Amino acid sequence: MHELEVKVPAAQPGSYRVAIGTGLLPGLWPQIKAAFGHRRPFVVTDANVVSAGHLDTLLGGRPAPQFVIDPPGEGSKNITTAVAIVEAMEKAYLGRDTLVVALGGGTVGDMAGFAAAIFKRGVPVVQIPTTTLAQADSAIGGKTGVDSSVSKNAFGAFWHPAAVYIDVAAVQTLDERQYRSGLVESVKHAMIADADYFEFIEQQMDALLARRTDVLETLARFNCTIKGRVIEADPDERNQRRMLNYGHTIGHAVESASNYRLLHGEAIAIGIIAAGRIEVEMGLSEPGRLERVTALLERLDAPTKLSADMDDKQLIDLLRHDKKAVDQWPRFVLLDRLGHVHCPDGQYAIDVGRSIVEKVLGAMANDR
Amino acid sequence: MHELEVKVPAAQPGSYRVAIGTGLLPGLWPQIKAAFGHRRPFVVTDANVVSAGHLDTLLGGRPAPQFVIDPPGEGSKNITTAVAIVEAMEKAYLGRDTLVVALGGGTVGDMAGFAAAIFKRGVPVVQIPTTTLAQADSAIGGKTGVDSSVSKNAFGAFWHPAAVYIDVAAVQTLDERQYRSGLVESVKHAMIADADYFEFIEQQMDALLARRTDVLETLARFNCTIKGRVIEADPDERNQRRMLNYGHTIGHAVESASNYRLLHGEAIAIGIIAAGRIEVEMGLSEPGRLERVTALLERLDAPTKLSADMDDKQLIDLLRHDKKAVDQWPRFVLLDRLGHVHCPDGQYAIDVGRSIVEKVLGAMANDR
Ligand SMILES: NC(=O)c1ccc[n+]([C@@H]2O[C@H](COP(=O)([O-])OP(=O)(O)OC[C@H]3O[C@@H](n4cnc5c(N)ncnc54)[C@H](O)[C@@H]3O)[C@@H](O)[C@H]2O)c1
Ligand SMILES: NC(=O)c1ccc[n+]([C@@H]2O[C@H](COP(=O)([O-])OP(=O)(O)OC[C@H]3O[C@@H](n4cnc5c(N)ncnc54)[C@H](O)[C@@H]3O)[C@@H](O)[C@H]2O)c1
Repeated sequence: MHELEVKVPAAQPGSYRVAIGTGLLPGLWPQIKAAFGHRRPFVVTDANVVSAGHLDTLLGGRPAPQFVIDPPGEGSKNITTAVAIVEAMEKAYLGRDTLVVALGGGTVGDMAGFAAAIFKRGVPVVQIPTTTLAQADSAIGGKTGVDSSVSKNAFGAFWHPAAVYIDVAAVQTLDERQYRSGLVESVKHAMIADADYFEFIEQQMDALLARRTDVLETLARFNCTIKGRVIEADPDERNQRRMLNYGHTIGHAVESASNYRLLHGEAIAIGIIAAGRIEVEMGLSEPGRLERVTALLERLDAPTKLSADMDDKQLIDLLRHDKKAVDQWPRFVLLDRLGHVHCPDGQYAIDVGRSIVEKVLGAMANDR
Repeated sequence: MHELEVKVPAAQPGSYRVAIGTGLLPGLWPQIKAAFGHRRPFVVTDANVVSAGHLDTLLGGRPAPQFVIDPPGEGSKNITTAVAIVEAMEKAYLGRDTLVVALGGGTVGDMAGFAAAIFKRGVPVVQIPTTTLAQADSAIGGKTGVDSSVSKNAFGAFWHPAAVYIDVAAVQTLDERQYRSGLVESVKHAMIADADYFEFIEQQMDALLARRTDVLETLARFNCTIKGRVIEADPDERNQRRMLNYGHTIGHAVESASNYRLLHGEAIAIGIIAAGRIEVEMGLSEPGRLERVTALLERLDAPTKLSADMDDKQLIDLLRHDKKAVDQWPRFVLLDRLGHVHCPDGQYAIDVGRSIVEKVLGAMANDR
């Protein structure tokens, strides 16, 4: 037997711009054309974003090949839609010189990003997020994913955007529930990384709920700085990046138990409270922290209690089937103080005994 | 407007083992288990490979979750099959700790590699090629691709294997036409990179056609060394890697014009002859080279002339639609001597005037 070695050279380190502003959209198309002039743009968006007028604002009457996801939202975020997007690019005679332009919320960004990753072995994607969730979270970081007929996010790729343009004016047209729910990820960022940012959100809550663009711009800066720093340290989620899953372990179980009646941010709010209660049980919480977090989430109208139809036993069962579970039990991200993740022995996701989690969920079930 | 920069760190440089031997298959499963012990294997293969007994040889009666592509071959190499493979992994309760094991020819390797690339944002794949084509070419290099309903290889990803195991005994069961056709890629490797290797193939042709395993092992070593070296220098095909497309520009047009009646290697043989004739036109050929290449391909029973139903005008039209065409005309890889690619100004794929190509194809059309 002979053996050879094939070397795979390191990919060049890269970087991408995140531009943040108010009213960027009307002037963006020429800017994209200038930055990616040799590429042919293909816009992916959804029917609600179109109705809200954002596609027209972006294109300003210019023609561009496009795919409008309809119906919008979670239900369309599957492999069938991703395949349809790729085939639409082919039918528009696009090739490797395509630039995918994703205009919309997290579902548009995930589908467009995934389609870009698999079209002709990968073409670049530009993200233009239009929801509070996408501006805070999904548009940066390079994770893409779509559902199979069997489970959520079964298909996916790491595919970093070539640029991100955040126009905070775009969220003005978002309905109130979506708007507020998306802000939960901003609260999460503050909690894991920056107590001053948490205080900023507390103080600016009225302005935030009034969608004041200066506050939204500051929020975007905080979010992108925090998420960017984490990803830079651990792009493939080997350890540190896991901290972004704060509140998500129980949050995902809650989201699933609600049959996706709860929006992502709403489910994560409950997950954040559950994590806070676990911290209290484990002596990781300074006095008053849980109350302070609860108060902030309540001002966002986010649920902080389990809903009536949610069974704690069912949630435990869902946790056992968590996609990151090891030996049928997931790890948890916890804080040891506001703005700081507890990481004993350098581990950002840690073991928490089942009895503690059962106790906390049991108490939350009694407490609604 | 504010601007931030998100840094994407360089991926670690990597490497993978290519093991080459005779009769590796029976002992391979424990070896894979030892090398990837913490991962759960999922085998992708096809019905012909199963009938030929190779799956049984690999598994030796051990149970393993698997997907058997049926019908085998080109017609199944599409996104529908790739999606079915991913969903089969999910139904077998596999997660991010999966190891995809591809046992088969280039179509199996391409489908399994692509499915591995998109399952849960990517799981590793081990390639065990069983055809002369896959052992020489497709199993190494990390290109994967599957067809859409619109065109060939519309979907794909760069996804390097975690290991490659070449058992040259596996090609003993291949039918004669497939066996010979796959050897054309070996001839191509020799032509672009190593005149001694070309001479080796000439001298060992009888042993090769008799499928002598020692000669096949030597062939595999030459192929992997040449392809490995090219990929190492240019993993993303920016320039040097294009040399692997020698004979493929016109070859692909011929393959397509034949409606895939011609096997890939057979079409490439015609493409190699066409490239040789272009070299003669351009004064790039030393005396006797084209005759020597023609003679070698003929000993492989590969076609060296256009078939009766192939129109030179149609081929020109297909070239204008080549996926790598710039301004409706592709570039060509040419040799300036046997074993050496002509690369003026450091360019491995060069402009060739349309009139020269029309003249050559016209002459080949008259000459059948
Ligand atoms: N890739 C990642 O890293 C990541 C991170 C977090 C969440 N996600 C994914 O993001 C998705 C949720 O994101 P989302 O909440 O933005 O979902 P979404 O894209 O479905 O948007 C929510 C709703 O708002 C509409 N909409 C979007 N922008 C609008 C606007 N400006 N005006 C009016 N209506 C508008 C949409 O049509 C949709 O009906 C989930 O699928 C989740 O899995 C991905
Ligand atoms: N990824 C790459 O870099 C790359 C490079 C070149 C070609 N390709 C792709 O490879 C494919 C062609 O590869 P191929 O010729 O190996 O095709 P293939 O996988 O279809 O194999 C050819 C036939 O031989 C059968 N077979 C395979 N192994 C056998 C064995 N040991 N005994 C008996 N029968 C066996 C198969 O079932 C099939 O019917 C094309 O789809 C082409 O696009 C990919």
